Amino acid sequence: MAGYQKILYILTVSVFIAVFVITTNNNFNVILKPAINRVSRRSADRFLLSNKDAPVKGEGEMLGSSENRSLLPFSQSEEWHRHVNGCRTVKIGDTAHETFPAHKNSSVASSSNTKYFVDKLLTSRGHAKDVYGHRTVINNPLRSFSVVEPGGPNGCVERKRSTVVKTSRARGCHAAVNAGFFGSESGACMGNVVTDGKRIQDGGGIKNANFGIRKDGTIVVRYLSEMDVLREDNPFVQLVTGVIWLVRNGTVYVNESKAQDCAGLQEYGPMDKFVNVLSARVAVGHDDQGRVVLVQIDGNTEERGLSLWEFAEFLLSLGVVNAINLDGGGSVTFVLDGTVANYPADHW
Amino acid sequence: MAGYQKILYILTVSVFIAVFVITTNNNFNVILKPAINRVSRRSADRFLLSNKDAPVKGEGEMLGSSENRSLLPFSQSEEWHRHVNGCRTVKIGDTAHETFPAHKNSSVASSSNTKYFVDKLLTSRGHAKDVYGHRTVINNPLRSFSVVEPGGPNGCVERKRSTVVKTSRARGCHAAVNAGFFGSESGACMGNVVTDGKRIQDGGGIKNANFGIRKDGTIVVRYLSEMDVLREDNPFVQLVTGVIWLVRNGTVYVNESKAQDCAGLQEYGPMDKFVNVLSARVAVGHDDQGRVVLVQIDGNTEERGLSLWEFAEFLLSLGVVNAINLDGGGSVTFVLDGTVANYPADHW
Repeated sequence: MAGYQKILYILTVSVFIAVFVITTNNNFNVILKPAINRVSRRSADRFLLSNKDAPVKGEGEMLGSSENRSLLPFSQSEEWHRHVNGCRTVKIGDTAHETFPAHKNSSVASSSNTKYFVDKLLTSRGHAKDVYGHRTVINNPLRSFSVVEPGGPNGCVERKRSTVVKTSRARGCHAAVNAGFFGSESGACMGNVVTDGKRIQDGGGIKNANFGIRKDGTIVVRYLSEMDVLREDNPFVQLVTGVIWLVRNGTVYVNESKAQDCAGLQEYGPMDKFVNVLSARVAVGHDDQGRVVLVQIDGNTEERGLSLWEFAEFLLSLGVVNAINLDGGGSVTFVLDGTVANYPADHW
Repeated sequence: MAGYQKILYILTVSVFIAVFVITTNNNFNVILKPAINRVSRRSADRFLLSNKDAPVKGEGEMLGSSENRSLLPFSQSEEWHRHVNGCRTVKIGDTAHETFPAHKNSSVASSSNTKYFVDKLLTSRGHAKDVYGHRTVINNPLRSFSVVEPGGPNGCVERKRSTVVKTSRARGCHAAVNAGFFGSESGACMGNVVTDGKRIQDGGGIKNANFGIRKDGTIVVRYLSEMDVLREDNPFVQLVTGVIWLVRNGTVYVNESKAQDCAGLQEYGPMDKFVNVLSARVAVGHDDQGRVVLVQIDGNTEERGLSLWEFAEFLLSLGVVNAINLDGGGSVTFVLDGTVANYPADHW
């Protein structure tokens, strides 16, 4: 989640449709979506249609995070290397990790399956709340899943600004969602980025949870040293960095992760606030069959949505084994066949 | 809203995209969407993904109204002519009506504009609830707005079963939503249906609120006698029948309408229950510029969504001048560019 009325870059995850798998190529996409914030705050006035100028869905709207205040602005792209909240960088060595063989089944026709849901969650106070969102399960992820830069190739180095819709349509994705964090002032992509076998940037070993796939199809969920990211043997073909490792090996890992993950990639606030606040959320992970799973939840920061504790529990209920938390809040946009299919918090 | 686990027919409203207006033709569509119910009831279990088998969005899912119990099943297509709840049929004469010149502006490029919203409503008990939905505003409705049968032409007489997605894609619509009521047992379309100048069926003068456009572009919102529907001078080119006239000439008309509208077209229950229950809702109406307005609200019957009182107030807040209530509940599906863009209550 980035600062109020700032220009944002988001790394997103998408999947090509099965038709493309069969008829064209294996080039599948994760969309990097920068967005411009043009939102006015929603009021609580009775029956007021507060978003009279809400973006037209499916037509390249620009979204941002007006609802999320920034307490840790990163005006320089180097900022996220700093030691923030005890944040470390790890140059070499074997940090905490989970690896898992990716699903590989040539007899499965569909490369992915997306479902929407409106589920009831019991809050810690004992009352029920509705959770709206989507879940995409991706078969044969080595072929079907990609990380994609905003606006396409060179989007990170050029600090391009685009939307999930535009980038998704340009790549012909079936499902696409925003993913990585970014500097709201600089527009810079943050963390490690590897897309379709091309290493775009590395985070200098910054300690944040990563999700990636190696060349041999191994799914990797872990903290990565700089060396891990740069190694040439069985290199990463897809890689994205998040903030907070939500689920590890089938258990909630938020507490442990809070003490480890650097808070700097996100601009909402101190780690505690970032973890506890209700908001729209996005996660990428995998299930016990090695299928990649994308989960998006609608919300509005500080009002509606899930905390990361709730989000982690929710992911477990979906059968997710490992998952990291990606950019949430006003950035959260789930696009299906080029059309926004969720209710993003931001609108103008 | 139709009965639990029954086969449904729904008349829907859609709009062609601006590109088609400019480049191809003026043939715009309202989709009739029959649906097959294959839903299991959602439980309130903690964190349970109760709709594990939720339909894949955007891929022609079949939806129905499992959550809505039927108290007035119509097994014979003639049933809705009966006198139910003091329901009358009107053969001739001038019944209550509102007419309005349709928006006509050749300099307006876009034929429609769709926005999503998540708004807070204050309930009568004083607490706030979130309302998720879409609003489509249609310019030059005489050219841009159509009523369409399920699965395309002859859908009503053949009692075809299709979805909003399928029918919308076949017609290349920009926006589409379910609309008219239908017999869950028979699959028959109910009420008056006129599509693109072709009169499909008439309701025999059954007293229910109608929404239509005449050949000269006049928007008509009214109770119609059989004679009104059948007249050849300035005939209807588009016409659909609902249950309950929500907003009349800028005021809430639910109370007056309750005493007049026949309850028989809907299968949820007695008129009072139908009006008061919380549910997903759809309305068609117009604003003070003569633009046709479609409004869809997400919900889950008896749990979430709006009563018709709340829905009428909400429509007023959107600047709607006249509007009728169309089929709600599990049928409610809003499709944008061929992709489901809301969170339908029903899923399997």
